[in-house]
Amino acid sequence: MDHPDVLAWRDGHIEALDQTALPHQVRTLRIGTVDELVRAITSLAIRGAPVLGAAGALGVALAVRQGSGEGWDDTRLAAEIARIAAARPTAVNLSREVAAVAARIGDGTAAVEGAALAVLESTGATSLRISARGAEYLLQACGDGPLRVHTHCNTGALACLGWGTALGVIRALHVAGALSHVIVDETRPLLQGARLTCWELGQLGIEHQLACDGAAPFLISQGRADAVVVGADRIAANGDVANKIGTYSLALAARQAGIPFVVAAPESTIDAATPSGAAIPIEQRADEEVTAPAAPAGTRALNLAFDITPAELVTAVVTEERLIPGGRPA
Amino acid sequence: MDHPDVLAWRDGHIEALDQTALPHQVRTLRIGTVDELVRAITSLAIRGAPVLGAAGALGVALAVRQGSGEGWDDTRLAAEIARIAAARPTAVNLSREVAAVAARIGDGTAAVEGAALAVLESTGATSLRISARGAEYLLQACGDGPLRVHTHCNTGALACLGWGTALGVIRALHVAGALSHVIVDETRPLLQGARLTCWELGQLGIEHQLACDGAAPFLISQGRADAVVVGADRIAANGDVANKIGTYSLALAARQAGIPFVVAAPESTIDAATPSGAAIPIEQRADEEVTAPAAPAGTRALNLAFDITPAELVTAVVTEERLIPGGRPA
Repeated sequence: MDHPDVLAWRDGHIEALDQTALPHQVRTLRIGTVDELVRAITSLAIRGAPVLGAAGALGVALAVRQGSGEGWDDTRLAAEIARIAAARPTAVNLSREVAAVAARIGDGTAAVEGAALAVLESTGATSLRISARGAEYLLQACGDGPLRVHTHCNTGALACLGWGTALGVIRALHVAGALSHVIVDETRPLLQGARLTCWELGQLGIEHQLACDGAAPFLISQGRADAVVVGADRIAANGDVANKIGTYSLALAARQAGIPFVVAAPESTIDAATPSGAAIPIEQRADEEVTAPAAPAGTRALNLAFDITPAELVTAVVTEERLIPGGRPA
Repeated sequence: MDHPDVLAWRDGHIEALDQTALPHQVRTLRIGTVDELVRAITSLAIRGAPVLGAAGALGVALAVRQGSGEGWDDTRLAAEIARIAAARPTAVNLSREVAAVAARIGDGTAAVEGAALAVLESTGATSLRISARGAEYLLQACGDGPLRVHTHCNTGALACLGWGTALGVIRALHVAGALSHVIVDETRPLLQGARLTCWELGQLGIEHQLACDGAAPFLISQGRADAVVVGADRIAANGDVANKIGTYSLALAARQAGIPFVVAAPESTIDAATPSGAAIPIEQRADEEVTAPAAPAGTRALNLAFDITPAELVTAVVTEERLIPGGRPA
């Protein structure tokens, strides 16, 4: 895609496309401290489960460099690394990749940076394998197309590097000449669908239409899509899926309409240590993301950033390694 | 409520609270021509199925006055009245009340104005009866409370005069000490929930929280509400319900969660001439309501203003006259 790197490691700094500024501004953040990284993650300048994993990996390298310059002891270094891992709670990729790279600290700075860069590179490569397998599965499940695909939030290069997860599957269908068009949920409150997915699809020349989140289940009920494809922030051992708020409603509508509900995500999203969706921590964000500017001053909100789709509503999970049948008959 | 009349007839003009300016500005429109009225209706300055019915009734009186001043012949008068009736297609109340008052034109101006004012008055009175019956039904269906009620869009005095329909039911529960709190969907794209319902509930001192439309089905699945109560724009002969886009997703979630999904609406919303939801015209509005300002320039949208909830997902319809069991067992 014709834009700066979504995420890179240059001269001991993390460079990241500022996703809060898109689509109207294309701006790169240069991040040199743990504070700056945590702020970029909590503000969603850096976002998307796989990109969060890679940013966490690079964050460990950043913390080691900063700690070495500022003379941190091991306790301080561990505390700073823990802050990165905890910057957002729902996507397991962040804490997992932080832990994996932090385990190399005893081997020295070069080993840590090497491990972090390996995560960065494999994240993009993984997305290409998910994309290909997901497209193949959809064509099996839905026929030869051209397919109409409904998706949610942003799961493209911006979230995952490479081609993305759900959006990578869509791109692979497009490249294969098997895509009709995409229906994109705007994804309130932060509008990642309207801002980011529409921008990526526009850059790729893929036909798309934007819909309000509340409209999506009705559009699905009216036969407007052949399949729903989404990403995931964490998949529990029983197959329950945590993903951007709004996902559950699509899964319910897809089952009712009899179309596949497919989750495209890297293996690193699967968390065998979490038995079910009920054990996945759901991030609650500030009321103002929902209330401003339309609601009267002082209005309170229920602002869950993610929801849980029970395995029984999932047709299949596609990873870079395998196709995992969901709890719902295909 | 401590605000100017939602809708009134003064000195041969329609006065209407400008609902596009709320909640930040409380402003009254003074409407003296059919053009102005049609603009107020299409822009949603005047909105809500029962208020549209009353505005249509007053609109006929307005057209008769304007026509008499400007020397319209019968053909012109009929054409202008038809424009009012067709200003928005989905709520049957508008065309129905226009037709009812227009039938009195042969009886003279005073008869027309009298008939229009009767519609205005009965609209408010009707809402009080719906409110009381709906509250009684919910307490039967859900137990003595205090109840947590999920609602959508705006169905209060602003939409219905009096107490409203769904919001009237909520107000009646509150007055009876049987309401815990309300969860209000923001109701994209025009945010009638965030702007209007939160404002009305604030004025009434009723505790409430705002949620994104895409979050609503998940919140319902998590046991956060005892019932879903919504209004309607048209109810077909088979019990299918047209209401603000987003309603279908709530009905699906309510059935899955095993809580009542109740429609509160005046008898005038029931359209025996429309056999099923498939025959209800669904208004499509401008792309920009969805795309601006977040999406990239040129993004297309699917902007249906209403959706259809099949009767099989409805637990009950409450009107001013009766309780009609829906297609879903209570």
